[in-house]
Order: sequence, then structure tokens, then C-alpha cells
Amino acid sequence: MYEILKKITGPKDIKALNIQQLEQLAKDIRDALMNRLTKVGGHFGPNFGMVEAEIAMHYVFDSPRDKFVFDVSHQAYPHKMLTGRAQAYMDDVHFGDVSGYTNPEENEHDFFNVGHTSTSISLAAGLAEGRNLTGGNENIVAVIGDGSLSGGEALEALDYAGSELKGNFIIVVNDNQQSIAEVHGGLYKNLDELRKTNGQATNNMFKAIGLDYIYEANGNNIEKMIQVFKKVKDIDHPIVVHINTKKGLGYKLAEDNKESWHWSSPFDEKTGKPKVDLSDIETYTSLTAQYILERTKKDKKFITITPAMPGTAGLTIEMRKKLGQQYKDVGIAEEHAIALASGIAKNGGRPLVVTNSTFLQRTYDQVSQDVCINNNPITVVVNFSSVRGLTDVTHLGIFTHSIFGNIPNLVMLAPTNKAEYIAMLDWSLEQQEHPVFILIPGNGVHDDERVADINYSQINKYKVEQQGSEVAIIAAGGFYQLGEAVAEEIKNEKGITPTLINPRFVSGIDTDLLTKLKNNHKSIITLEDGIVEGGFGQKIASFYGADSNIKVRNYGLEKEFYDRYDPEELLENLGITPEKIVKDILK
Amino acid sequence: MYEILKKITGPKDIKALNIQQLEQLAKDIRDALMNRLTKVGGHFGPNFGMVEAEIAMHYVFDSPRDKFVFDVSHQAYPHKMLTGRAQAYMDDVHFGDVSGYTNPEENEHDFFNVGHTSTSISLAAGLAEGRNLTGGNENIVAVIGDGSLSGGEALEALDYAGSELKGNFIIVVNDNQQSIAEVHGGLYKNLDELRKTNGQATNNMFKAIGLDYIYEANGNNIEKMIQVFKKVKDIDHPIVVHINTKKGLGYKLAEDNKESWHWSSPFDEKTGKPKVDLSDIETYTSLTAQYILERTKKDKKFITITPAMPGTAGLTIEMRKKLGQQYKDVGIAEEHAIALASGIAKNGGRPLVVTNSTFLQRTYDQVSQDVCINNNPITVVVNFSSVRGLTDVTHLGIFTHSIFGNIPNLVMLAPTNKAEYIAMLDWSLEQQEHPVFILIPGNGVHDDERVADINYSQINKYKVEQQGSEVAIIAAGGFYQLGEAVAEEIKNEKGITPTLINPRFVSGIDTDLLTKLKNNHKSIITLEDGIVEGGFGQKIASFYGADSNIKVRNYGLEKEFYDRYDPEELLENLGITPEKIVKDILK
Repeated sequence: MYEILKKITGPKDIKALNIQQLEQLAKDIRDALMNRLTKVGGHFGPNFGMVEAEIAMHYVFDSPRDKFVFDVSHQAYPHKMLTGRAQAYMDDVHFGDVSGYTNPEENEHDFFNVGHTSTSISLAAGLAEGRNLTGGNENIVAVIGDGSLSGGEALEALDYAGSELKGNFIIVVNDNQQSIAEVHGGLYKNLDELRKTNGQATNNMFKAIGLDYIYEANGNNIEKMIQVFKKVKDIDHPIVVHINTKKGLGYKLAEDNKESWHWSSPFDEKTGKPKVDLSDIETYTSLTAQYILERTKKDKKFITITPAMPGTAGLTIEMRKKLGQQYKDVGIAEEHAIALASGIAKNGGRPLVVTNSTFLQRTYDQVSQDVCINNNPITVVVNFSSVRGLTDVTHLGIFTHSIFGNIPNLVMLAPTNKAEYIAMLDWSLEQQEHPVFILIPGNGVHDDERVADINYSQINKYKVEQQGSEVAIIAAGGFYQLGEAVAEEIKNEKGITPTLINPRFVSGIDTDLLTKLKNNHKSIITLEDGIVEGGFGQKIASFYGADSNIKVRNYGLEKEFYDRYDPEELLENLGITPEKIVKDILK
Repeated sequence: MYEILKKITGPKDIKALNIQQLEQLAKDIRDALMNRLTKVGGHFGPNFGMVEAEIAMHYVFDSPRDKFVFDVSHQAYPHKMLTGRAQAYMDDVHFGDVSGYTNPEENEHDFFNVGHTSTSISLAAGLAEGRNLTGGNENIVAVIGDGSLSGGEALEALDYAGSELKGNFIIVVNDNQQSIAEVHGGLYKNLDELRKTNGQATNNMFKAIGLDYIYEANGNNIEKMIQVFKKVKDIDHPIVVHINTKKGLGYKLAEDNKESWHWSSPFDEKTGKPKVDLSDIETYTSLTAQYILERTKKDKKFITITPAMPGTAGLTIEMRKKLGQQYKDVGIAEEHAIALASGIAKNGGRPLVVTNSTFLQRTYDQVSQDVCINNNPITVVVNFSSVRGLTDVTHLGIFTHSIFGNIPNLVMLAPTNKAEYIAMLDWSLEQQEHPVFILIPGNGVHDDERVADINYSQINKYKVEQQGSEVAIIAAGGFYQLGEAVAEEIKNEKGITPTLINPRFVSGIDTDLLTKLKNNHKSIITLEDGIVEGGFGQKIASFYGADSNIKVRNYGLEKEFYDRYDPEELLENLGITPEKIVKDILK
């Protein structure tokens, strides 16, 4: 097993192989991918589809002198194997050696930590400009695919490369006719046309904006790919290399169902079934999907919008069909998704946007300018806005409060149980006065007896869930249950009943309530599922700081790029557990 | 004077005019523009170039049922005159009636407060989707030009319109061959080709992505523009109407120098000379330009990048020529500018990005992901990051601390005088460890005797400018001089010498110094030129809140979208004056 792959210590070993050996190498790589992915999961389709192209890249170019930038870098596993990191795929003991993305700390063949889409052309253009400034002459290659081309940053960079950039620059457009879900956007029509005409279509969008262009229909043929890369190597101007590949190639189930196999949790190779089946568990994601399906039926003005993340709204292909024109996947285009929603709200529709916190941060300006200055009533469901969300450094959801909580006019709600989530959705979609964000709690669905107070029209009105004295705990969203535990611990340890507050609003403070608390409280604890800096707890510290003797302790994450952490371990280390918090206060 | 214009109460009056009268109307509008602009200033070239097109729009379409969305909306003055707001241009007493941008609170013919570029197609697409949901059939028209087409949001929306949007949708591409400065980007090559071929070029970028297309060479001919709009009115699918116009048409000086006349302060009509000549005053902008020129000469790895805002770096056309390949205007493409800089830094260059705070907010994700996770040493000079910067609601610079101050790894510096600004530029461009933002103070150049401490390598080390007791004033950036005044006022009123601290770093706190202050201080005042929420003062309040009796008062702006305000009046109203602050403390 892995007879060729296990001998590869770096690109020089690849250059010594003949075509048959390279083909065996491709097989080895797929075996190694399968070994890792069945056991720990990861990006499946993107890597299986790019094996041949990445072998050819390393065969033709001279990495790390020549520099590759992979978009999202979720398809860079073969590249990792070819640059001395194959053990992390072949040998289970070494799984932990690599991250799921390119990582300069890991290897000299990686230039950026990348995890968001549509950044590769810009970053690579930067490498090229750096080369031009410093008198280098290496090849710079950006690899972009899986729907990433429609993102604004990628389009801005294409436009730049088409006229401003001098010297060698190679943009590999990996056209696998797929995003995570199906592709959306006019540019994919152009890729279709170009494929159908073997690259000869009139109205070539790349040529239109000044880029040279070459097409290769056989993106999964190593020999052909070597030929095409040899053709463009050391070229003296920017060129697009449009290659046609098959996402998931080599595993029938993945070839047939590209959406399900974009990313995979650990699974059984024979059946394709996940090793742990979570499909029956009620999640906020399944609640979101159910809510969307029901509301779409009864409210003809309601529309669901997602920037290429239907999965984060729980919407399967079958569900999306039922939604018809009341569902829009705008493709990877977060900025457009938010501005579009603003326009829809302005002209009588009721838009709901769903995506992940980490991708939403791309829309700060649109949320501020297109939405909040205009006060248009859009609703945004923000998924993975939690320390317990995505744990790769490029996908953190712990900045939501600090980014969006400081934009005027925006109402940011943090539900603490199922009833509250549904009530908040209902309220936000009925009212016409405010843009609303709803942050999905990261700690699972709590379907407790607490009834949701359905009147959210009193903006920034906190809810006292338990009236007590001495200590008040203000525990937001997914940290509410932590607040309950802290309250209980205080009761057990000190015999006093603290006040427990569910703020619901994390974008502002309830000054009336906070003022009242001064009467019979000495200490306030804020708990928020995000970084403390710029968050909602600091607003409360600031409120009390000016003229009261009340102590305020803000609990939350530090301002830091955490990477591949265990959430419970991290919280323990940061002292964010009931026991440690109570110990803090007793000091 | 204004014989036709003064009779226009709304679009219906325009429809009753014949061509000769419409041409007279165009003349009246230019006279009215001249009347206002010579006296109060505003956007010049964009409005002079679009007079005929906007007359034709109102002649053919039926606003407000048919809906116009103007990109940036800085070219919407003729539209305003044609929709009942002509007095605000003809009659000096009424200048205050209108804002410089479209404004729904002002008039039913305006749909959005818009001031940033590249948003019109997305917002208009939203209006169209809203129409589709609610069963309407009106025309939706987006008007975009002046370089805005290269912004990511616009490109994402074009891509969307090319395949996802059903029904009527008209995108007017106002091609005046100009941004504020000259245009940059491959798409302008395509517009050139299309103009040269009367719209018949192969590789039409709009057709490539699925959009219908029509070209009109005579964008300043009312009759031709009426014909073209009649042709596309009630069309049942999206179409691009590419029109060729002349920016600044009707005023020779503006036609000849489009960059200088994009926007104008009050001027003398005969000579074109500004009424108040500020060109000899030393500003941070002139210091920036001078710094760039000098450093470019001596440091071959140094490169200046701006997303279409050379003016905010003080760089004239002549200066830019001197910079050669060490200067890149990337066009309106803020996201790309930041990611490009990151790539340049990674490959050995020393990039300096210059733009305005309000436009930089479009790059939150790029600053976080492309730059800060990778810790690439780029320097960004942030202009108008102040309450004393741009005062239109769409251009506020008071959010910089809350947006960027909470991103890990970013070092945000706030200089307080000339020496410090230069020293910070030097340091940031020499070091290789940190991404650095430098916030231009909004209160003019202070060239006082305080020497800049040139060692900024101790991140978050505050500087004690005056050692005192009882009260410590931490006064950042452009509010440092306010801190000096507060210190003096305290001395005068109470006879004690307060401690005065220049934090220099506004993205973190100096915990050592803050801990020491506990010994002989009872009260801390933070002063920051931005909103308090999410800013640097609240970090300090949070620090002390947990376990000290020190009172902390955070001064700064409220979390609010201020609009067209007088800065000194606003500060007075918010109690941010030495007198009021001292009165506060004494309470």
C-alpha cells in the first residue's frame, strides 16, 4: 500500500516519476485520502477531484520557489501529501500533524492560512507584486474552484489581474460545476459555454477583461495537465487556465452526490454511511429548516436567501425544491446577499438570510450601509456564532458580538431555548422597524419550560428569569445555561439566591434594569459566548464604571485566533466553568 | 433664469415638455448645479455628466412607481431637481433642504440612503425580487458609473442578475471613462472596446455572464437617451444599458480636469479657483504624500496601494507619475487592496495602503483573514477616522475602533502629533511582525515639542506624558489635545495635577500601567475619537470593573448614525468639552 506515495519526501521525488508511476501516485493519494477521511472526516469531493492537477502542478513547477495559493485551501490535501506531509494521511498516528487548510507554520510550501473563499487570486497577485518589487522571477499560481469565483474579492482580483498586474501570473480555474451545493450566477453559464465549445465560445468573460486564457477538458488526466502547465510555465503575463474536473472522482457515491460529499464526517467506506448518525437529533439547524418550510407556505412575501450555505439552514435539495421562488441561493456572494435582502425588505418582501458567523463578517459594510442606515427590516440567522461552533482558526464564530453589536440600529438577539428562538423568528419577520440578527446558540437545543416573552418591541429590555440579590448574572444566548449553573453553584456555596438575567438583546444595554440592580446587588457577572473585547459585557462594565461601586466581571473568550481547540477544554482553561467563576467571585 | 426648471414639481411636468424645452431644462439644471456648487460645494463632474440621462429617465419611466437606484448617489442632483427639490439648488435659502445623496426621508423618489460605491445593482436587484414576490410589475433601474463597477458587491450583483433574477431589471452603466481619478481594472478595457466598436466587440463581459446588452454612444443627448430608455422600458428580463457620457460636461475646466472636479469646494465660476485656498496648510494628508514620495525613493521594496483614493493620500497626478511601479491604484476594490497588500508583504515587499475609514470598513474580513490570521506586516493609513472627518451619515469615520480594534494581532496606532505620525510610519514599515493601522488624527497637525518615542515594539505600552495623581486621563489620537485641556482645567479647578496618558495603541490595554495607576488614582477618564461602544475605553472599564474601586468614565461618541452635523456642536451636546468633562468628575 502507498508504494509510491510513501517515498515522496517533496516535489523533487515527483519529478523523477514516469506517467505510470504518477498514475499510481494518484491512486495512492486517493487511498490515503480515504484512510483519513473515513476516520476523522474532512473535505472530500474537492480533494478527490484535484489529485491529478496537483500532481501535475508539482511535476511541472518548482515549489516552494514557485508559489501556489489554494482558494479556501480545502482542496490542498494532495498538495500536502506531495510536500512531505503524506504521513498525516497514511498513518493514523499522524492525523494530528496537519490542519485542514494550508498553513505556513506547518510547511514552507504553504504561504497563507486560508479558509474563507475567494481570496486566492488577490493573495497570489500580492505575491506576484512582491516578486516584481524584489526582482524575482518565480511562477505564481492561484487555484480557485468550488464556486469561489463569484465572491467579490475574487472578481475584484480578476479585474486587477486583467490590466494592472505585470509578469507571470497563472490562475487555475478548477471548474467542477459545483459549489458546496449547485452553482448559481451568470459566470457559471459562461464556464458552461466555454466547456461546451472547448474554450472557443464568443464572449469569454476572462478575455473580456484582458486576461489570456487556455482551456483543458481533461483536468483529471495527469499527462494532459502536465502538458497544459508546461505550456503556461514561465509565461510573462497573467493567464487563466480553465480546467474541467470531476468533484469526488474515484468514489462513486461522491461522484453521484456532490453536495453531500463536499465535506464528510467519519464514514464507512463500503456504505458511505456516517459512523455516528446524528440525523435524528433535533438541532437549531433542523428547527430553522422546519420554520422556513412552514413559513414559506403561509407567507407569500417571505423569502429565504443564502450565500451558498443551504446546509447551514438545514435545507436539503428536496426542501429547496418545495420553496420554489421563495428561496434564493445567491452563490458565494455574501455582500450581495445582504444588500439584496435590504432591497427586498424595502419593496415589501420579508427576507431571511442564513449563513455562518464567520462568513457573515464579510458583510460588515453592507450590514452597516445597505441595511442599518436605512433601517430595513431584514432578519439574519447567524449559525456557528459560538466557541462551540467551527474550531479552525479561519472559521471562528466568536467575533459576532464585537463586529455587529456595535452597529447602530441593528437589533441582535441571542435566544436561550427553542421557544425563544421560534418567537424571535416570528417577531423579527412580523415587525417592520428593525434589522435583526438572531444568533444560534452553540450549546444544543434546550427545550425547557421557560416560555418566550413574545414582545421584543421594547428594544434592549432584558428579562429577569430569577429575582435575587447580592450577585446578578447576565448570561446571554448559548451561555445562558452556564448562567443557570453559576446561579445554582452560588446558592449552594453561599446560600444566597443570585439574580439571573437573560438579556436576549446583545447589541445594547437595559439601563433601567441595570440602574435598579444597584439597589441590592454588589456584583455583576456577564457571560457571553464570544470575545469579551468589544462585546456586550464591556458595555455593562462601562455603564457601571462611571459612578457606582458595583463590581463587574466580564466572562468570555480572549481576543485571540484560537485554532483547532476543544471547546470545553478551552473554557476550562479560561476559567469559564461554574466552579471557577464562583471561586473568582468569592475571592 | 430657470424658466423651465422652476415649473417642475415632479416627473409628470417633464413628460409634458418637447425636446427643445427638455434641452432648456438641461441648461437650467446645469445653472442650478453651478449656483449651488459655487457656493456650498459638492459633487461636480458626476452631476454635470448625467443631466441628460436623468431627464430622459424621468421622461420615459414613471417614478416613483418605477424605481431608480443611483450608485453612491453622488450623481443624483438632477434627479433631485426633477422630483420637486429644485429649490435646494436654485435658491440659496433652501440649500439645507437636501443631503448630498439620495435620501428616502427627503422624498418618495429616493429608496435608499446611499453613499458607498458599488451597492446599486444589489439593492436594485432586491427591489426587483421584492416586486416579484409581491406581484408588482414596475421597472427597476440601477445607475452605476464613476468607477463603481469594479467593487466586489457590484460584480457579485452583476453575476446574480445574469442568471438568477427574473423579470424587468435595467442596469445603466454610466461610462464616463473615469473614477475619481483615472480608472483601473480589466473591465474598463472591455468598456473601451465596446465603445470603440459601438457595442459590437467580441468578448462582451456582460453578455458573457448572461446579461442582455445595449449600447448608446450619445449619453448626453436627451433625444437619443429617450429612445434607448423607451426601448428597454418594461423589458421582461435583465439588461445592461451602456451609455457613453462626458463627466463634467458644460464646464470647460471640469471637462479638462476630471479628477479635480469630481468633487469641489465652493469656487469662483470664472476662474475655477476655490473660494478658500487651503493648499498651503500642512495637513496629515500632505505629510502622507511627502512621506510616500521620500520613502519610495530610498526603499525599493516599498509600495503604496490605494483603492481609488489617491487624493486621500495627497497624491496628485504628477506625484503618482514619480512613484512608477511603486504605486498601485487598484480601482474601487477595497477588499482586493487589503489582500493584495498581505501577499506583497509575504513576498518581501513593504506595502502601505491608504484610504478613508468609512471605505475601509468594507474590508473587515480581509483584515481579519487575509492579513491578521497570517500576521503579515502591512501598514494601513486610515484617513477621516474621526468625528471631525466626513459628516454625512454614509461616510462617518467614528467606528474604526469598534470595527478593527477587536481583531486579534492587529496593532492600531493613534498618533497625537506630527513627530509621532512619522515615527509610527517608520516603525510600522521597518518591522516584520505585525499588521499595523495608523489612524490619522482629525484635529489638524500638531507640531508640538513632544518627541515621539520611537520604540513601538512593546505592543500596548502606553506613554505617560504627565505624571500626576487622583485622576488619570487616557486621551487617544485626535482627542489627545482635549486630554491636555482637561488636565489643565482640572489643575485650575481643583489644584491637583492629573496624570495624562497618551496610549498610542488603541487596540489593547497596558495592564501594567493600569495596575500601577490603582495606587494613587481614584478616577480614570478615557477620551477617544469614535464611538464608545466596542472602543478602547470600554476595555479599560472592563479591566478595572472586576476588582478595583477606581471609577472609569468613557468619553466618546454614541453608537448612532449621525448625519450632517457640526462636529464642535455635537461634541458640546455630548458633553465632550474640557469644561463639561471636569464638571462631570467634580460631581
